[in-house]
Amino acid sequence: MAKTVQEELIRKKALLYTGTEIQRIEPDGTGSTILCDGLTLDADLAIGATGVAPCSDLARDAGLVLGVADAIQVDSYLRTSDPDIFAAGDCSDAIHVVTGEPVWIPLALRANRAGWAVADNLFADRNALKGVAGTAVFKVFDLTVVRTGLTLSEAQKVGFDPVENQITSLSRARWQPGAANIDINMVGDRQTGRLLGAQAIGKDGVAHRINAVAVALHAHMTVADFLQTDLAYAPPFSPTWDPMLTAAIQLAKKL
Amino acid sequence: MAKTVQEELIRKKALLYTGTEIQRIEPDGTGSTILCDGLTLDADLAIGATGVAPCSDLARDAGLVLGVADAIQVDSYLRTSDPDIFAAGDCSDAIHVVTGEPVWIPLALRANRAGWAVADNLFADRNALKGVAGTAVFKVFDLTVVRTGLTLSEAQKVGFDPVENQITSLSRARWQPGAANIDINMVGDRQTGRLLGAQAIGKDGVAHRINAVAVALHAHMTVADFLQTDLAYAPPFSPTWDPMLTAAIQLAKKL
Repeated sequence: MAKTVQEELIRKKALLYTGTEIQRIEPDGTGSTILCDGLTLDADLAIGATGVAPCSDLARDAGLVLGVADAIQVDSYLRTSDPDIFAAGDCSDAIHVVTGEPVWIPLALRANRAGWAVADNLFADRNALKGVAGTAVFKVFDLTVVRTGLTLSEAQKVGFDPVENQITSLSRARWQPGAANIDINMVGDRQTGRLLGAQAIGKDGVAHRINAVAVALHAHMTVADFLQTDLAYAPPFSPTWDPMLTAAIQLAKKL
Repeated sequence: MAKTVQEELIRKKALLYTGTEIQRIEPDGTGSTILCDGLTLDADLAIGATGVAPCSDLARDAGLVLGVADAIQVDSYLRTSDPDIFAAGDCSDAIHVVTGEPVWIPLALRANRAGWAVADNLFADRNALKGVAGTAVFKVFDLTVVRTGLTLSEAQKVGFDPVENQITSLSRARWQPGAANIDINMVGDRQTGRLLGAQAIGKDGVAHRINAVAVALHAHMTVADFLQTDLAYAPPFSPTWDPMLTAAIQLAKKL
């Protein structure tokens, strides 16, 4: 899937240099000059994307327990190790619904949801959050990229016996305007048959399709359960079998 | 929602006559003349849409048991009342995953899936189908209309104590091109908190969103379970809270 994203960047006339360290960025008259090892590039705009880290220094200094990736450890009520102090947002961890283990996946919905839950929990209500599936979507020019749950390598790391299968399906009935390929990786566990995650990429009808898989992960469905679900079909919107169902059928065969 | 569909038809210059019986359709030089009670209309094309009925006469004549709506009664293996005869397709019934009762909802995915299952069951494999959620989508000019599970009145009829709530949410972040309203009705059971169904209508990002709700129905989730699911967010595709989550939150308050 990384290769598909790379190809889209290049198709849109973006220059792509991987494994190249930036030494310096210098403003010039109209933009910036980017100086790399043996390479000088002119740019209208330079954006630094250097990864993210939880902003948990204040919590550490206050003596609160930090957990995975140095995020603030919270329970399902968003209580830190000091029960009078709550933490919500990209600074704090969450339970992963597939593994049952703490993870740090700083995404907006969880941050927002945790904020509301803290507001509830400061007063009478007790709002316990169940966890995250790690569902995410982003846009790269004309491509949409989505994921939920675990990738093959993530599933291996946490001790599953994962099997992955990749399919390509059309987003709509073949003869419908706008129909385009969707590539889907789906991952299941060989021992239990559980659905563990999916990733997909394409130009049409990708974003919301991942949500069906996300709900299945929350419900701890097997691949065999999920492939039986009744998803919407009409030619302008889907093939008879939604691409996520086709992915599950093919993965089930491999399992 | 019917009103929204009517308004879309009228906006697209369709003439809409409800409660008007067609007496006769007569071909003229270039099209048809439609004669109604006190009304004569010229049409380029006349399409009869008079409802559907299961094609089960052959089965009845063969002595097989017909069930709901005179569809052929089948078990989860698609066996009719004669275990040597299978039935698949729009002629046969299915179990509804919300009610656990037989229903006749003739839609393509179930028909297709049942055909494959019969092919399995004629040989070694035993492919038991779990049932349908009644998930459906259609397009009316620029509008998309979706549903899954039960409406308020359907839920009342089968003995639930249903509560319905309606919301309007944007399909994407407010400032994103293409963002449009989605109207959602969501139905839950007051006694158990169970999610029973949803219907939605809008011009953008409607079709695949219903699938998340459909999977939740297969998993027998409560409204409180569903509103905690981790659905995809990025501004080009969704508000931070997916409209289906917002619908569930508001319904939960009412429950």
